[in-house]
Amino acid sequence: SLRSGVECKALNVETKPFFSVGSKFQLEDVIEAQQFNRDTLGAIFDVAKEMEKIEKISTGSNILKGYLMATLFYEPSTRTRLSFESAMKRLGGEVLTTENAREFSSAAKGETLEDTIRTVEGYTDIIVMRHFESGAARRAAATANIPVINAGDGPGQHPTQALLDVYTIQKEIGKLDGIRVGLVGDLAYGRTVRSLAYLLAKYKDVKIYFVSPEVVKMKEDIKDYLTSQGVEWEESGDLMEVASKCDVVYQTRIQRERFGERIDLYEEARGKYIVDQNVLDVMQKHAIIMHPLPRLDEITVEVDADPRAAYFRQAKNGIYIRMALLKLLLLGW
Amino acid sequence: SLRSGVECKALNVETKPFFSVGSKFQLEDVIEAQQFNRDTLGAIFDVAKEMEKIEKISTGSNILKGYLMATLFYEPSTRTRLSFESAMKRLGGEVLTTENAREFSSAAKGETLEDTIRTVEGYTDIIVMRHFESGAARRAAATANIPVINAGDGPGQHPTQALLDVYTIQKEIGKLDGIRVGLVGDLAYGRTVRSLAYLLAKYKDVKIYFVSPEVVKMKEDIKDYLTSQGVEWEESGDLMEVASKCDVVYQTRIQRERFGERIDLYEEARGKYIVDQNVLDVMQKHAIIMHPLPRLDEITVEVDADPRAAYFRQAKNGIYIRMALLKLLLLGW
Amino acid sequence: SLRSGVECKALNVETKPFFSVGSKFQLEDVIEAQQFNRDTLGAIFDVAKEMEKIEKISTGSNILKGYLMATLFYEPSTRTRLSFESAMKRLGGEVLTTENAREFSSAAKGETLEDTIRTVEGYTDIIVMRHFESGAARRAAATANIPVINAGDGPGQHPTQALLDVYTIQKEIGKLDGIRVGLVGDLAYGRTVRSLAYLLAKYKDVKIYFVSPEVVKMKEDIKDYLTSQGVEWEESGDLMEVASKCDVVYQTRIQRERFGERIDLYEEARGKYIVDQNVLDVMQKHAIIMHPLPRLDEITVEVDADPRAAYFRQAKNGIYIRMALLKLLLLGW
Repeated sequence: SLRSGVECKALNVETKPFFSVGSKFQLEDVIEAQQFNRDTLGAIFDVAKEMEKIEKISTGSNILKGYLMATLFYEPSTRTRLSFESAMKRLGGEVLTTENAREFSSAAKGETLEDTIRTVEGYTDIIVMRHFESGAARRAAATANIPVINAGDGPGQHPTQALLDVYTIQKEIGKLDGIRVGLVGDLAYGRTVRSLAYLLAKYKDVKIYFVSPEVVKMKEDIKDYLTSQGVEWEESGDLMEVASKCDVVYQTRIQRERFGERIDLYEEARGKYIVDQNVLDVMQKHAIIMHPLPRLDEITVEVDADPRAAYFRQAKNGIYIRMALLKLLLLGW
Repeated sequence: SLRSGVECKALNVETKPFFSVGSKFQLEDVIEAQQFNRDTLGAIFDVAKEMEKIEKISTGSNILKGYLMATLFYEPSTRTRLSFESAMKRLGGEVLTTENAREFSSAAKGETLEDTIRTVEGYTDIIVMRHFESGAARRAAATANIPVINAGDGPGQHPTQALLDVYTIQKEIGKLDGIRVGLVGDLAYGRTVRSLAYLLAKYKDVKIYFVSPEVVKMKEDIKDYLTSQGVEWEESGDLMEVASKCDVVYQTRIQRERFGERIDLYEEARGKYIVDQNVLDVMQKHAIIMHPLPRLDEITVEVDADPRAAYFRQAKNGIYIRMALLKLLLLGW
Repeated sequence: SLRSGVECKALNVETKPFFSVGSKFQLEDVIEAQQFNRDTLGAIFDVAKEMEKIEKISTGSNILKGYLMATLFYEPSTRTRLSFESAMKRLGGEVLTTENAREFSSAAKGETLEDTIRTVEGYTDIIVMRHFESGAARRAAATANIPVINAGDGPGQHPTQALLDVYTIQKEIGKLDGIRVGLVGDLAYGRTVRSLAYLLAKYKDVKIYFVSPEVVKMKEDIKDYLTSQGVEWEESGDLMEVASKCDVVYQTRIQRERFGERIDLYEEARGKYIVDQNVLDVMQKHAIIMHPLPRLDEITVEVDADPRAAYFRQAKNGIYIRMALLKLLLLGW
């Protein structure tokens, strides 16, 4: 079944990366969204909540004083890197930065990822890795004797984004069971919405709406998985109607690079579902708009001033989630 | 008038970035040299003086412990970046570095500066921004809920350089009223000398000499402004005579990139006014030579050993001025 | 003689960079392997030993709190840079990073190294410099009023690598006098093995075996030097026999870039002496395999699991040696 197809990509939860004692578990690595269940998510969110208080202490925290984090980025992602580095420094930890980790294993030199990891683990206490190859984070974690966090591995996973998305929904809406979420935009290639759909399936009575141009619609694997988990979903071409029903409208950017020469198709797709004042007008008072950022014009600037525009708060939640993960990986509970 | 032309570019001093209570003001952002007057400059210089003592404490200071500064550089400027980062760390603060902030809003992604700022302000307590577009720092400050320091915005402003220049004159000569300053070299394109002329106009009985090749002479706007402020100025082709009269000889580099194909004009211009032993010989004992660095051969190496060569001390003063600004922006008085 | 040829490249040990009081000396700069003798090496190794304990303190050390180190890298070397930065941070110090120090003196600007150093020394307490030109570190040290560490200057020196190599041998084998070392691979261009041979000559009853393809064999200067120092050496084409006799098999990577168009010669050279299970089988129980890393396939992956594979421990020793040097340069004994 599709479900086991998904699970075969997951880590063996019994032995790695968790050692569970009730909901208190030992987090060893953060590799993919699938490694979490509603208990472990809830436990992490509780820690993230504590982190919100700590982040506000103006003299800073010393929780991770003496700890070193290396950001090993094989492709640049300033946004993600700064978020992790901010999280580490807010906890009193220190950072070794590299944005051109490819240089470690340049074509001329040809060092394996495993050798690089064995060297870097001698310099630091935790590795945050961004890589261009799917599965690289898992390979790094299998080699390292210190914790590894996947900060995105190519078309693969970006689990801390998935966690901060779910955390944002819980914090803004106050619940996860029973929520209605509209996923809008690029549902075919956006790993964000795919991971989010996967994690939402862990909650009860969730309903998901897919609103996307035909060329980038949600793929069958996720739809089959949701069905297998008893999650209601439907596809819709009517953003206004979906927006009026949902607790969360999760907008995403249509990625031009997916369309190659067909700029006409790209232009058609990107203009199709825009979140603007008209959408706000039909949304419920308690509902929110999310976006993984960066955004172009798929959310108009006029929306920013509305309190339901949650995307910059969502970005900020990334700090709390990453603080929580760093704390759990380095210190435990 | 020209003066109001200059002022229209300035921030509204009453409301932003200052809230003044006598000379004790609340500094909110550092965007351009024009935002300062002699009272605020004097107050900042008093703090810079304190910072000189703090910088010498070998165990470091904890004044900014728990604070984070992000250096958001859209174009590289290692010198300026390191100076700010050193200042922050000398005060016990921490730094998030990015030298390729363009990646935040790469062509493919196209995020606005405003969106980037709204994201980054969630990671940090203060933003130091270098940008290739004039006015970018002002836009960032208008968006951010945290302080912004302009570390140079294209052909626009570089206010911390202007401040450290005036601070250097006060410290080396012991006064600002009544001083005589020779500005030498590229006066047309050098934003350094333009800002310095502007700030010197705030002091009494100042006299400014302009010594430059014809092709890069001081533009009319600054000359008109000085006249409107009652500042005496004159243009001269005789560096030796000017040097013999001045308290400060401020040399600048002729920038080759301004001359395009006309390498002949560049070569002629750059060789015309060199500060060398002959210039030193006519200078007064208390006078100094300044330069914003880097220098090529517009000051000969033989000059370095003379105590009147103040340019490396001037660079060091940048640390104290930046420490003072960081302290004032983050903690107030 | 050759020996004085070598010495003419060395610093004057009496005055710089050491002020000796018995084996307790004042280390002022670290420029080249030749500046050390067995007393000073032994003293540094004693400090490195202490550093091993400090590095294990989970709350970190404050020994260098308040100190700033600038990594001024004119060419990228992520591995070396991170090792130094980790060492500094493990001691509670702070770091200013630049991986594109060439920007300081870009073609357009043309600042001299000396001017850059005079500016940077105002920002920091110690400079770690990587440069593409042989002799650059010495020039920097001659200019700076603060300590300079050479982190590699082109084809010249990389003294901290040489120190960590000797430290590794002492730690793993328990002695340096009387050891037998096989240097394998690129002996002509590898500065690592050249420096190591030079330092080993300071110990008694050392025997060195050179095992390399003809095209990259050890050059005459080192062989003559060893002879002049009474060090036994021999060249051998039989890796198995050498491996069976040695305490240390020091393997190196054949650098493709040395062969230009002659890829056939490169392929022949790189495949000739591989350290694999067969080599392990003949090695003594107490012997070790070293490599400066990165490695390609000159040591097969199967070797990694053997306790005699010391190369990742060797990389880790770089942290301890660099911690020791930073401590000695900034605080003394």
